[in-house]
Amino acid sequence: MKLATLRTTDSTVAVRVDDSTAVEITGFDDVGMLLAEPEWQRIATEAHGAEHPLADIDSSSWAPVVVNPSKIVCVGLNYKNHILEMGRELPEFPTLFAKYPEALIGPFDPIVLPVGAADAVDWEGELAIVIGSRTRRVSESDARQHIAGYSVLNDVTMRDFQYRTPEWFQGKTFEATTPFGPWLVTADDYDVNTELRTELDGEVMQRTSTDDLVFSPEALVSYISQIVTLNPGDVIASGTPGGVGHARKPQRYLADGNVLSTTIDGVGTLTNAVVAER
Amino acid sequence: MKLATLRTTDSTVAVRVDDSTAVEITGFDDVGMLLAEPEWQRIATEAHGAEHPLADIDSSSWAPVVVNPSKIVCVGLNYKNHILEMGRELPEFPTLFAKYPEALIGPFDPIVLPVGAADAVDWEGELAIVIGSRTRRVSESDARQHIAGYSVLNDVTMRDFQYRTPEWFQGKTFEATTPFGPWLVTADDYDVNTELRTELDGEVMQRTSTDDLVFSPEALVSYISQIVTLNPGDVIASGTPGGVGHARKPQRYLADGNVLSTTIDGVGTLTNAVVAER
Repeated sequence: MKLATLRTTDSTVAVRVDDSTAVEITGFDDVGMLLAEPEWQRIATEAHGAEHPLADIDSSSWAPVVVNPSKIVCVGLNYKNHILEMGRELPEFPTLFAKYPEALIGPFDPIVLPVGAADAVDWEGELAIVIGSRTRRVSESDARQHIAGYSVLNDVTMRDFQYRTPEWFQGKTFEATTPFGPWLVTADDYDVNTELRTELDGEVMQRTSTDDLVFSPEALVSYISQIVTLNPGDVIASGTPGGVGHARKPQRYLADGNVLSTTIDGVGTLTNAVVAER
Repeated sequence: MKLATLRTTDSTVAVRVDDSTAVEITGFDDVGMLLAEPEWQRIATEAHGAEHPLADIDSSSWAPVVVNPSKIVCVGLNYKNHILEMGRELPEFPTLFAKYPEALIGPFDPIVLPVGAADAVDWEGELAIVIGSRTRRVSESDARQHIAGYSVLNDVTMRDFQYRTPEWFQGKTFEATTPFGPWLVTADDYDVNTELRTELDGEVMQRTSTDDLVFSPEALVSYISQIVTLNPGDVIASGTPGGVGHARKPQRYLADGNVLSTTIDGVGTLTNAVVAER
């Protein structure tokens, strides 16, 4: 099952995305609000609200899957190939940092290069894990039951701000720069061994199998839950593989007029025009 | 004027703290909800709800001033004396990281040393800046009008988790470890040149003048607002001076039975018993 959030005239609404239609899950403003309901799977399956043919939905109507997650926990180096090719050892612990929900944009919204922070904006295609039920200090083997599903997120990063200080956070949480969606694929429909791909103007920049993660989704949920409670709708951005612009020779960054596309096969594709702020 | 949040049987309530009584600001669950109201100063001044003699309020009734801020942005090295004594140069930009609201506890709640993360728990007494109105891309000179007031926060840190990876975040956001309060002193009643003091079992560990900050409250609000919107009730923990346990020789950490006290003269005092998790 696929779940998404659509923008309405003055709010948003959660939908079930079927083959050719989006069906409103009446009473739920977004997927986050839906997941807060213990019976969310049954509610979503049985929903029969207003139907919208997918072909008729304007790309600007798709909101971030979860509009206002209480946490977005991001993971640093987490792809084995990338770490090994950089000559580093595999880490013992995941590197974690935070992003605030104000950073999120819809899956097809433009990425606006902000005045004052436009010079080194880079892509980081990532598999997003969405929490389905409250959990704290959960074991890795029990973590699976707290994962609602998976989505696509591009952890767009201002490299200049990221490296101004030892802490990456300020380069990671810029307002309205992180596309997230287009939908959540429930865990039962997700194939853990699939391909993640980031393309810039059609040129493949990042390509990896998602089973190359050092810390699996279950391991991340378990680890983070030792530190802090995870709530329904919380998001874990599980890290990016090699191929970011900052590590290229010469370095490449997002520029006005680019189109950034981030795909996880079997999950979905983010497509974002890059535009300079006027 | 002083504003605080008191726990009630099944919720919390914002109060104005007068000389000898706390007066309920009826209809507002906490100071964060109050600050979201543009007329909060008038509402608080005129409030005349139920009165509680301060002497009758149990210490466990004091909640974090803002119970669930949308952001707690923490600042790294920010005291000149401390930076210079460490042989470092004054930084050009503030070091920022995040803490989630689940980390907050009331000003007199015990700090529980968590099983699995109890070996290197350290103090970081800090001046907390509380945002009073939504702001984005505000200048330093206009930032003052968006600061509701000041409070005391101890950014209690699990040093082992902080230094597991390059990013400090995971050592900073442990559930229920960060005391915050006991009240907010509104900006008009705050003296920027006052003393911050952290004591462990009565022994002074940290002592500084709050005007020794490299980045002033207004500079921090302005800088962070270039990155992301600040909302009413958001908290900026402005950094800690020298004297943390980790930098002592020999190193000292919080232990079962300690009492940690964090004071900003003219603002207030946090008093927290340290207890091992059973």
